[in-house]
Amino acid sequence: MTILDDVIQQLSRLPGLGKKSARRIAYHLLSADAGLSRQLGTAIMELKDRIHRCSICGNFTEHDTCTICQDQSRDTSMLCVVEQPQDIAVIEASHEFRGYYHVLHGVLAPLDGVGPDQLNLSTLVYRVRQTVVRELIIATNPTLEGDTTALYLKQLFAGAETSITRLALGLPVGGDLEYADRLTLARSLRARTTM
Amino acid sequence: MTILDDVIQQLSRLPGLGKKSARRIAYHLLSADAGLSRQLGTAIMELKDRIHRCSICGNFTEHDTCTICQDQSRDTSMLCVVEQPQDIAVIEASHEFRGYYHVLHGVLAPLDGVGPDQLNLSTLVYRVRQTVVRELIIATNPTLEGDTTALYLKQLFAGAETSITRLALGLPVGGDLEYADRLTLARSLRARTTM
Repeated sequence: MTILDDVIQQLSRLPGLGKKSARRIAYHLLSADAGLSRQLGTAIMELKDRIHRCSICGNFTEHDTCTICQDQSRDTSMLCVVEQPQDIAVIEASHEFRGYYHVLHGVLAPLDGVGPDQLNLSTLVYRVRQTVVRELIIATNPTLEGDTTALYLKQLFAGAETSITRLALGLPVGGDLEYADRLTLARSLRARTTM
Repeated sequence: MTILDDVIQQLSRLPGLGKKSARRIAYHLLSADAGLSRQLGTAIMELKDRIHRCSICGNFTEHDTCTICQDQSRDTSMLCVVEQPQDIAVIEASHEFRGYYHVLHGVLAPLDGVGPDQLNLSTLVYRVRQTVVRELIIATNPTLEGDTTALYLKQLFAGAETSITRLALGLPVGGDLEYADRLTLARSLRARTTM
């Protein structure tokens, strides 16, 4: 196998890239300046060496704790539990939440062998016990695994004086009733709000 | 800027990747085994060092000449001119052509400062003169620049005893008349064939 085939194969294994787009990128690198490949290659290799999990919340960071956990101006009484570090960026972009986060690094999936021990849970229990968390927002995905994990967390913190909430389900803003799936529409109707 | 932002920015500059897909790939690399990033980074850096242009046709190769130019079983009387090395793979996949190729590494684009001197033309002139090329298939893209380049080549080899042809224009196989653009349909009608 040539180095070109090797690069195309490796690129095509990345999420969102198929054989064709991988080939396009490889040829782009070949046609471009040699500096581009060198920079990209170095950056990709350094990425994993320099970034690790925040010792408090599990977010990715270059330091011991992440920038959000370091930010003293946030609301310590609110804690938002997410599945993956990338979910934090999405919630931050909404500008609706000013508390802290906790990253599980997965969801409960017994069939795939993922139980509570495989998730970043021990520090969560510690955080809820030690700090005054008034509200724990469980922002796992609205999927079977995400719902299961949410239920598990609800039971885990049943004794604590923390209200446990979950993100609302309903129609997406700008969405079209015609294209809404049955389940979403059902949840949306059930959770209808007074105008 | 953190190394994560750096990787995301560099990835998002690659063809076909936007900010979101670049972010997804970066987080995938972070969540995956460290070996994945190391392998991919090394391969990308080696790519440009090990691959260069075939001294005969301009295709990308790890050796002095590419595998196609080395293949003695091909038809020496047919030469297919393409814009980019990746076009060769597409034509090879059609299994319709068993001659040799010549890669221009671009098209004439006077407004972008690309004239005949910027293209891989001198070796093409040499090849057409030295070998018995019966047919020169000009497979540049059916765009303004591709058509201009085809016309230029036609004039360049006007004196030579080589018939110069161009890929047919028409409806794509499996296409739908309803979705065909006006220009394609017009060319398709003009070039209609008897059944």
